[in-house]
Amino acid sequence: MTDSGETGGTNEAVLEVCRQAKEASKVLAPATRAIKDAALHSMADALLAHAGVILKANAKDCDKAAKAGISPGLLDRLTLTEERIAKAADALRDLAALPDPVGRIRRGWSLPNGLRLVQKSVPLGVVGMIYEARPNVTVDVAGLALKSGNAAILRGGSAAVASNTAIVEILQGALEEAGLPRAALQSIDAHGREGARVLMTARGLVDVLVPRGGRDLIQAVVGESTVPAIETGEGNCHVYLDASAPVERSVAITVNSKAQRVGVCNAAETLLVHREAAPRVLPPVLQALADAGVTLHVDPKAAVLAPEGVDTVPATDGDWETEYLSLDMAVKVVGSLEEAVAHIRTYGTGHTEAIVTDDLGSVEAFIQGLDSAAIMVNASTRFTDGGEFGLGAEIGISTQKLHARGPMGLEELTTTTWIAYGDGQIRS
Amino acid sequence: MTDSGETGGTNEAVLEVCRQAKEASKVLAPATRAIKDAALHSMADALLAHAGVILKANAKDCDKAAKAGISPGLLDRLTLTEERIAKAADALRDLAALPDPVGRIRRGWSLPNGLRLVQKSVPLGVVGMIYEARPNVTVDVAGLALKSGNAAILRGGSAAVASNTAIVEILQGALEEAGLPRAALQSIDAHGREGARVLMTARGLVDVLVPRGGRDLIQAVVGESTVPAIETGEGNCHVYLDASAPVERSVAITVNSKAQRVGVCNAAETLLVHREAAPRVLPPVLQALADAGVTLHVDPKAAVLAPEGVDTVPATDGDWETEYLSLDMAVKVVGSLEEAVAHIRTYGTGHTEAIVTDDLGSVEAFIQGLDSAAIMVNASTRFTDGGEFGLGAEIGISTQKLHARGPMGLEELTTTTWIAYGDGQIRS
Repeated sequence: MTDSGETGGTNEAVLEVCRQAKEASKVLAPATRAIKDAALHSMADALLAHAGVILKANAKDCDKAAKAGISPGLLDRLTLTEERIAKAADALRDLAALPDPVGRIRRGWSLPNGLRLVQKSVPLGVVGMIYEARPNVTVDVAGLALKSGNAAILRGGSAAVASNTAIVEILQGALEEAGLPRAALQSIDAHGREGARVLMTARGLVDVLVPRGGRDLIQAVVGESTVPAIETGEGNCHVYLDASAPVERSVAITVNSKAQRVGVCNAAETLLVHREAAPRVLPPVLQALADAGVTLHVDPKAAVLAPEGVDTVPATDGDWETEYLSLDMAVKVVGSLEEAVAHIRTYGTGHTEAIVTDDLGSVEAFIQGLDSAAIMVNASTRFTDGGEFGLGAEIGISTQKLHARGPMGLEELTTTTWIAYGDGQIRS
Repeated sequence: MTDSGETGGTNEAVLEVCRQAKEASKVLAPATRAIKDAALHSMADALLAHAGVILKANAKDCDKAAKAGISPGLLDRLTLTEERIAKAADALRDLAALPDPVGRIRRGWSLPNGLRLVQKSVPLGVVGMIYEARPNVTVDVAGLALKSGNAAILRGGSAAVASNTAIVEILQGALEEAGLPRAALQSIDAHGREGARVLMTARGLVDVLVPRGGRDLIQAVVGESTVPAIETGEGNCHVYLDASAPVERSVAITVNSKAQRVGVCNAAETLLVHREAAPRVLPPVLQALADAGVTLHVDPKAAVLAPEGVDTVPATDGDWETEYLSLDMAVKVVGSLEEAVAHIRTYGTGHTEAIVTDDLGSVEAFIQGLDSAAIMVNASTRFTDGGEFGLGAEIGISTQKLHARGPMGLEELTTTTWIAYGDGQIRS
């Protein structure tokens, strides 16, 4: 897409998508819950009715990706099955069962001059989503955006283009059947990277951009976007075993945080152990991690505590800042809770940190000392998740501080309007 | 500052300011309300005790600005008096009287697995503020940042550099006396435009940037900043007189919205009148505006309704999108409420719009149709203000949708941390 004529064409085509989304957002904003929920069920029905079409398109994507030598993990994320489509449809019905995030009164009071003030939730407007090759995310985002009264513009990973095109077309048909505009959900996959760039700079037409994916994607958006963006998903999470950490709980939480699922942002990457606990808890923890297939990148103090038969590799400085997303874990013995906190503040991404302890003072010091989106006290880092938190659904996990922090559900896809009701008040 | 050696020096010096702010933020975040409030009183005392120093520095700024031919309006904003310093000190004491925005539990519940979940307000961390030559803003921001537990880095307008330098030094002394780090409040005025640029890209050290000023400043920040920024203060506000608008209320609200104070973002710039109301309400409204000294930029349908002796000038397309910030008002007769809403959506900045009506249906249609931060029903646009809303104080008025919309008080200077308390929960 270096030909300037083509770029100009892409530019105009994507801006037209944005303008149509803006128009659709005016229809979606006042849509009642009944209308939106009916559309969600209609979308779920359509996915099931046209599952064959989706699977055929997905098979095309998967063949191409396999030939291109995609990793097994990525291929698994790309692959759809009847069961996965049914699950996506169920998720849409679950959304229909959730309360409407729009129209909620957040705050309100009467002013001394008699003005009655109300702060009400309203949709953001147009939400742009840039994500990687996971077609089920296409369905999730379509549902979340609709339920929260927003128009959505999707830019999925190029490896999933056939699957996404099929899904969007089917969902658009369902929206239309429910009396809502097709432009409530649009894809710009056809416009490649240049299209994503136009989306990132469509300030005034697109109200928020949510990049969901790896570090490179997030950094590209942060650097290039003039549309306000919410960073999601970079997770260098830590488990800290305090001086008083009980062995059994330490083993369970560390292994679960690391190995229950490795390719996700809320999996732990580094284990920090208080030196007073290390001789007691580290041998069984390292044994259990090794049994779970984890490669251990250890500092010298941890190395000497590895049980016989447990292989370790020496940790380098790079290990502390690496989000492995694999069966690898960095392990370090620290002299104090304060050292653990300082380590996390230096190397962490502010996602989720867990502490295992029986000491009340340690809990308070850990919470006060850190600056992360979520802190788990005697629980696995894997709980930082919209579904687990009971938010009902999740569009991503924000690791930034503005607007949303941690799991973003429906409420995080709204903004507010202040309304003041008066009978002629003027300012003196 | 084109010499690369000097630029490098500025770069390092401003980054060092940011790093010190980050360190100070670790002390401020856990500071109790008692400590913060004592510091606010200490700051107020110091301002009064050293008023002479501030006034002397301010006189230097004002002399220089007057010689440079600054406008009377800007000179007035730049000028400090004993009374204005006393008012700034009072504002700090008012902040001390407000509840602590930090540590508030926003939401919380128990999960099926027994995890107890709590979402708690915490400071943003380091707040960067870029503003124009108004030294009283320096005091306001210092107070708001401290009360909300944030470190602040200030970049004020160059015309106020002597005043700001004096104020910051005095406030730093007060912070120190109260046992808080001087680096909780720092200025980078000495580093000029290049310093502002370093601040805007100090991602990871600065948590949020709040530009407060005219369109050019906001656009520069939006374009160049990699630190998340909150747009504030662009206000092309509208008053709409509906078909049923009573004459007296129409006159009072229109004149107050336009002329009570003209250089502010919540002043109205355009008057829209329903054609059924125009013959009845427009003549007295135009008369009252003219009496208040307002220059009327009118469309042809409004022109013919101007009373004898009231001069008007023809409105051009440019008038609809102009934020005059002066005694000028654009006036247009519209065929319907829908036309008024469409006009506002096309030309407005999403700040504040007022409707004058006795019709319930019109109120609902106006609210539903618009996409603005604040809507005044039978009240002046001038009420969109943190103080008037009862938020206690205001760091700016956000016209964007993420994080904060409308007047930003103390709560908007916080983010949240999720804390989950468990006893060994792991994810299955």
